[in-house]
Amino acid sequence: MPTIDATHAPTLRSWVESANGHRDFPIQNLPLGVFSRGDERPRGGIAIGDMILDLAALAGSGLVEGAALDAARAASADSLNPLLALGAGPRAALRRRVSALLTEGGAEQAGAGRSEVEPLLVPMAEATLHLPARIGDYTDFYVGIHHATNIGTLFRPDNPLLPNYKHVPIGYHGRASTVRPSGAPVIRPQGQTKAPDAEAPSFGPIKRLDYELELGVWMGTGNALGQPIPIGEALDHVAGLTLLNDWSARDVQAWEYQPLGPFLSKNFLTTVSPWLVTMEALAPFRIAQPPRPEGDPRPLPYLWDEADQAGGALSLELEVFLSTAKMRAAGIAPVRLSHGPAANMYWTVAQMVAHHASNGCEMNTGDLLGTGTISGPDDGTQGSLMEITRSGRQPITLPTGETRTFLEDGDELALAGRFVTDGAVSIGFGGCTGTVQG
Amino acid sequence: MPTIDATHAPTLRSWVESANGHRDFPIQNLPLGVFSRGDERPRGGIAIGDMILDLAALAGSGLVEGAALDAARAASADSLNPLLALGAGPRAALRRRVSALLTEGGAEQAGAGRSEVEPLLVPMAEATLHLPARIGDYTDFYVGIHHATNIGTLFRPDNPLLPNYKHVPIGYHGRASTVRPSGAPVIRPQGQTKAPDAEAPSFGPIKRLDYELELGVWMGTGNALGQPIPIGEALDHVAGLTLLNDWSARDVQAWEYQPLGPFLSKNFLTTVSPWLVTMEALAPFRIAQPPRPEGDPRPLPYLWDEADQAGGALSLELEVFLSTAKMRAAGIAPVRLSHGPAANMYWTVAQMVAHHASNGCEMNTGDLLGTGTISGPDDGTQGSLMEITRSGRQPITLPTGETRTFLEDGDELALAGRFVTDGAVSIGFGGCTGTVQG
Repeated sequence: MPTIDATHAPTLRSWVESANGHRDFPIQNLPLGVFSRGDERPRGGIAIGDMILDLAALAGSGLVEGAALDAARAASADSLNPLLALGAGPRAALRRRVSALLTEGGAEQAGAGRSEVEPLLVPMAEATLHLPARIGDYTDFYVGIHHATNIGTLFRPDNPLLPNYKHVPIGYHGRASTVRPSGAPVIRPQGQTKAPDAEAPSFGPIKRLDYELELGVWMGTGNALGQPIPIGEALDHVAGLTLLNDWSARDVQAWEYQPLGPFLSKNFLTTVSPWLVTMEALAPFRIAQPPRPEGDPRPLPYLWDEADQAGGALSLELEVFLSTAKMRAAGIAPVRLSHGPAANMYWTVAQMVAHHASNGCEMNTGDLLGTGTISGPDDGTQGSLMEITRSGRQPITLPTGETRTFLEDGDELALAGRFVTDGAVSIGFGGCTGTVQG
Repeated sequence: MPTIDATHAPTLRSWVESANGHRDFPIQNLPLGVFSRGDERPRGGIAIGDMILDLAALAGSGLVEGAALDAARAASADSLNPLLALGAGPRAALRRRVSALLTEGGAEQAGAGRSEVEPLLVPMAEATLHLPARIGDYTDFYVGIHHATNIGTLFRPDNPLLPNYKHVPIGYHGRASTVRPSGAPVIRPQGQTKAPDAEAPSFGPIKRLDYELELGVWMGTGNALGQPIPIGEALDHVAGLTLLNDWSARDVQAWEYQPLGPFLSKNFLTTVSPWLVTMEALAPFRIAQPPRPEGDPRPLPYLWDEADQAGGALSLELEVFLSTAKMRAAGIAPVRLSHGPAANMYWTVAQMVAHHASNGCEMNTGDLLGTGTISGPDDGTQGSLMEITRSGRQPITLPTGETRTFLEDGDELALAGRFVTDGAVSIGFGGCTGTVQG
């Protein structure tokens, strides 16, 4: 398990001034991504304030050695897969070295003048951010129990939470080819739908376009086919987390999802924040998984690990913001649609991984797992419009007087996440946004 | 649409003697695959009788030029993706040239002595066959209407075929990482199951291990995100077909599949035949899609194309064989579990592709689509044990006196497919087998 060390010290400041007090990327974070500038080839980088440390340049700088150099070299390709495949050791060594090089007064202590490190920095404003990894397979879970209950109530009022929910970390396979980094346009898909009172289905632009607030899990090291991952080792296979928006066409979903689950209602786009917050960075924010409510079944042994229960939840605040074209034109700030803790997950990340591999399913470096929508039990905490508007029956009203049941063309939707805990400097993911195009 | 040309002539014979009268690989077939021998690197090949034509060697031989040379060069890598990405033109040019080079008396006519071609042949018995392509995403459909009805009857006796079935080519995302070529061991997975009368679920080796007889579709060229593929162009994006066994854990499936569909019950292994039968090779076997039964709805326009209806089905006989360890020890031939035509598909391959991309979902070279289980309406034609044994209630008896409800350790299951039509030489896929290991 990653430990809290000097790289997390709240007193740590960077000579990269924009990092100090930065909402997402203070020196305590150091998330990994892939960037390019102009026609340059994409390569790995680390976010620090409003700058990116170029890992390909770092690998060639002579400023790193040993495991950290191995990691920087592996991060010089156009995806982080080679780095993620190295596992936690080299990734942590790189973190420690980069932290030292970027610390105020630390570059010199680390045997490198700040003047040697500064040329390795690229302004984030000049960079294009890519997907951090080449995704093998993408799986979406359903661990937000309040979401499952809320949605279940809408689809199956008599039977909201199915009998398997508290025993099985329910998940299904998603589409890897349509995962995009923050900022990718949300092209309103066409689809086959049938209103409950319609005689026959029809095909055209979908009407009930929704978002889903999720976390994404990037797999570091995989397992061989036929070799399950024990729950006690599950987090060793995880590289880090991201924000994830599972855009959804609710009208398509309602018509297509029986009996094999969501398909075209979900696979037209999935947006992730391009920065991978490493397991090392989020170590201070790991908290105990909330105890299961009285009467809930104890998970089967393959899903149960005391250490995971002790530190498997996250002290992480999640938010969703909406701004319409009209709001932006009028200079009105985005409206917050929801706000809640990520602790509303019934299953931990380790339980998701252990369950996924429990039948010997081969997991690979760069695989992406979504948590499923993270909602709370109360109004203001739900992670989708489907829940907020009660399937479109209760529109919300915006400051412009506009109303919304689902997303309309021109709407910009942004997810945000912020790790917060006493005694640690808060860190975040950066943006995870998309604007709807008709 | 591929046309019937000289490469299909029934009179065509090869100087590779084993090809003439070969069950699967006469000169009229020329399927594509990836092979290696010993420590040599994997590269593309074409099956001819019991030999493989080495496409990397062909590319360097001086015996091909133009588009056929481009294709052979693209097939020199360790996956066929570069070749498949070239589309039908270069693939067909390679087919024509290889056909000429391998035809009895044809090598000389084609300006190349047989003695120049012979060194490019590798005995299949000495080769390891790999997956033909690097799979991006794997999707499984559900187009076998009799299977859907049979399974629906078992899971939902009152509601076997759901209202969307005749309007929507139902499909769901599968797991790309666990697709393997014929011969890969079928490791009996562990899983969480709950018998209907059990108080609580349990975890252990699954008991109801089944197969599913399917066809696989290899995508050639893809589409850009947000750009649907019109049905009239859908087959231009398809490279060819394969046999596919969607191994299934029925006890896991029954407990996990609501509400998001099959997951661990399906993703522990999918086996494909390693030879890709090209759209060019199967041109003589394209037949009219059977008319929809009276009263069935006409598909929406995005799924309807007259040319597809005229030639969208296949004259293809499918079979499944089982042999137990005891049968093999006693020298007893495998028992045929099912036999039926592939025309039992309610939706065509073109309809599957057009539906998949209708929402703008990005499809890529090397994507794999399964048809779903192809069953007929009658006993002896069902493509899974779930159907044959009525969910285990009606065991089958084997020549050894053994009985089976589902697969047991040591059982070997083999799929076979044979394109048959008047006036054409029959072709096949080669093997698609797996043996269960406990």
